[in-house]
Amino acid sequence: MTPDQFREYGHAVVDWVADYWAGLAAGPDGARPPVQPPVSPGWVAGALPPTVPERGEPFEAVLADLDRIVVPATTHWQHPSYFGYFPANTSGPSVLGDLVCAGLGTQGMLWSTGPACTELETVTLDWLVDLLGLPARFRSDGPGGGVIQDSASSAALVATLVALHRASDGRWRESGVQDRFTVYASTQGHSSIEKAARIAGLGDRAVRLVDVDERLAMRPDALAAQIAGDRAGGATPALVVATVGTTSTTAVDPLAAIGALCREQQIWLHVDAAYAGAAATCPELRWTHAGVELADSYCFDPHKWLLTGFDCDAFWVADRSELVQALTVLPEYLRNAATATGAVIDYRDWQVPLGRRFRALKLWFVLRWYGVEGLRAHVRTGVALADRFAGWVRADDRFELVAPHPFSLICFRLRAPDGVNEALLHRLNATGSLFLTHTKVRDRFVLRLAIGAPATAAGHVAAAWRQIQQAATELLAG
Amino acid sequence: MTPDQFREYGHAVVDWVADYWAGLAAGPDGARPPVQPPVSPGWVAGALPPTVPERGEPFEAVLADLDRIVVPATTHWQHPSYFGYFPANTSGPSVLGDLVCAGLGTQGMLWSTGPACTELETVTLDWLVDLLGLPARFRSDGPGGGVIQDSASSAALVATLVALHRASDGRWRESGVQDRFTVYASTQGHSSIEKAARIAGLGDRAVRLVDVDERLAMRPDALAAQIAGDRAGGATPALVVATVGTTSTTAVDPLAAIGALCREQQIWLHVDAAYAGAAATCPELRWTHAGVELADSYCFDPHKWLLTGFDCDAFWVADRSELVQALTVLPEYLRNAATATGAVIDYRDWQVPLGRRFRALKLWFVLRWYGVEGLRAHVRTGVALADRFAGWVRADDRFELVAPHPFSLICFRLRAPDGVNEALLHRLNATGSLFLTHTKVRDRFVLRLAIGAPATAAGHVAAAWRQIQQAATELLAG
Repeated sequence: MTPDQFREYGHAVVDWVADYWAGLAAGPDGARPPVQPPVSPGWVAGALPPTVPERGEPFEAVLADLDRIVVPATTHWQHPSYFGYFPANTSGPSVLGDLVCAGLGTQGMLWSTGPACTELETVTLDWLVDLLGLPARFRSDGPGGGVIQDSASSAALVATLVALHRASDGRWRESGVQDRFTVYASTQGHSSIEKAARIAGLGDRAVRLVDVDERLAMRPDALAAQIAGDRAGGATPALVVATVGTTSTTAVDPLAAIGALCREQQIWLHVDAAYAGAAATCPELRWTHAGVELADSYCFDPHKWLLTGFDCDAFWVADRSELVQALTVLPEYLRNAATATGAVIDYRDWQVPLGRRFRALKLWFVLRWYGVEGLRAHVRTGVALADRFAGWVRADDRFELVAPHPFSLICFRLRAPDGVNEALLHRLNATGSLFLTHTKVRDRFVLRLAIGAPATAAGHVAAAWRQIQQAATELLAG
Repeated sequence: MTPDQFREYGHAVVDWVADYWAGLAAGPDGARPPVQPPVSPGWVAGALPPTVPERGEPFEAVLADLDRIVVPATTHWQHPSYFGYFPANTSGPSVLGDLVCAGLGTQGMLWSTGPACTELETVTLDWLVDLLGLPARFRSDGPGGGVIQDSASSAALVATLVALHRASDGRWRESGVQDRFTVYASTQGHSSIEKAARIAGLGDRAVRLVDVDERLAMRPDALAAQIAGDRAGGATPALVVATVGTTSTTAVDPLAAIGALCREQQIWLHVDAAYAGAAATCPELRWTHAGVELADSYCFDPHKWLLTGFDCDAFWVADRSELVQALTVLPEYLRNAATATGAVIDYRDWQVPLGRRFRALKLWFVLRWYGVEGLRAHVRTGVALADRFAGWVRADDRFELVAPHPFSLICFRLRAPDGVNEALLHRLNATGSLFLTHTKVRDRFVLRLAIGAPATAAGHVAAAWRQIQQAATELLAG
């Protein structure tokens, strides 16, 4: 494809994306696509030919198939009535930053293979330290530093690895998992903690799920007891993962108490704020991060709630030298003058893969386009809409809130058996006009309404509540 | 950013990318940027402000800083005279597929969160099985299946994990690394194999680097002896990684003999064809893959030499059920009706992270735009240019080829001490008009010239050779 063809088709694709977004954001009377498509498994595969075409096809044919095959089978995460899981924010500046990334085609494994790719990442991650009010020692001008991982799962894995490196006094690198290491999270911790422990060769049994209090936050006393018991049993506690904003209900673990215990016990503390870290952009929400200065590592996902498209997990360590020691392997073909000086960051040593995209571009575009004000406004909108929704739930005796809602996720249920709540969720999602997911809290089936898609406005949340009330009325009437 | 603003700025960014490419591809008289920028560490960071702007900035300011800060500090992987490492191909259709991916903002962790995202990936990976002449059992309509990983490093890690799962009869999942597992690759294997073993908790000591023959290919007899010795010493051999096209010199390990041994010894065979897999699109180059039907897993990178932008590693397993068993963790909040039927693929269980982008779009755009003919033509151009370059090296008595060149990488050196060859590389790269990297072969310093950037044509390779000859003349004259 020549640059001129790219220009022509590129304009067409930009228009296609703009039209797609405009279609999703159409007013209540516009014909918006169903949030979750009503397709059966195999529908997409059945619509595609069996092999690569022998000769190249016109670009117009590919573009037409987006509308024919892809859109009708897409769960629309950018739909204003998308309330499932957590949001997967994107935005215009993010998409355009990613477009520049793709156009440059830089592979930033080493500083020398992408100086701008490396330094822009370091600087934007330093910016985020200040924006979120994180500890200054996470900044690259101190002993720490930040890096973009693809996801909080990968951040949890990297934290696990460097924690093992530290807990074994560096023997792990050469000798592997020799001790009986243990890892701690609350019963509400993310599944990626278990997955990281499994990948790291500890096995699922190494993961201790610590009891929570009535707010679904980790109990420091239970953590202390578990650690003491494990030590008595001959295990080596290596890592505690505390969560700010659990996936199930956005519970906030008490970082200060957990951190103090980790310091005393010399255990690596990783703080997973994948979704809720974005809230720390707002000073009035920073209480959720009290104690974060005790963390050895911390991550949050701008790709969840900070207007930056997936994949963009921001991960920091307080001591970058340990991280690099844990993960570096230097074959001859990667040696270069800049690396040899020791004066540069080679991000390949901060992650599992060797190669890396220029992901800092989209983050940079977002931070500059929105500014501090714009980013805070986005978060505050979500929190305010969630507050309003919670008020409506509280005011309807048929419903109950089942967990605190410090951010923009509301967990609620009908005061009715699980089956009725399951039926309610199914009935709502089957309409296609909104999308919610579920969890279990204290073994009860609970609906989750996560606000934060960039296009979501007050009217969409109000419409969702009307629809939920209406569906409940129909269900309860039998 | 409104859809209309996105339209306006999007056209501007598309034009920016087109202009960037046109600038790189300018004829010999055009003022092309240096392939590797002459910037010092800290230059980019120093050009950026210390914090996120308080208020959002105009998009034009961001775009202007691309030219002021980013481009002058970018190693131009898409430059026609980029001959370093391996190519990191991108192309117009790839960039535009990625643009659609960013615009949709789909998070395809589950089939249900992205039916098109999931099925288009399954189908395009099935297409590639046929395009490359890979074993039919890798196809999703048999027991196997393909998935896009970010990189061959991650593929090596996933292969390591499922190999441990098999070698431990499934105990690894719960109990972690209990046995003394060993992993095998040739001395020329990629550093990601060692990194994967480290991440998986085996430690660097678990990796056995097997001796190679005069073509730098793994010696099956040496592998057999090493395995027998390890078994006698109480170890459990778990994984052999054979390479088609090593990073250092593109050596080809004999898959048939290695595969037969792995079958006999019941050891998982992973084939890493990260760079050279693209060559299998051409029937006349499939001899390099003889024996691949014995592999338990296989990967190659369309993002290296098949016109698809990073990140796109295509990874297959012959038995997908083992892979899913090894990696699945299913918390309540991810349960859904489609998963419960067992009739869909949830790709989150095929990889380390939970979240995933709609990467199949760029691959689909590339396969359709170029077709089989276009893809083969790209590979054949690289191979033919490499042949021609090798002929020139052979015809100049001052130089020698140091390894076979079945693909499009030439490894060569001056018949002179290492210091002279190092000086030659430095002198060439300092001009900025081309970029090569180096390796060591049998402890001697060797220059690598990797052909395959999409913009590279015969004239660029001829110009590189003239420049190499000229620099050698100057150097040898002292």
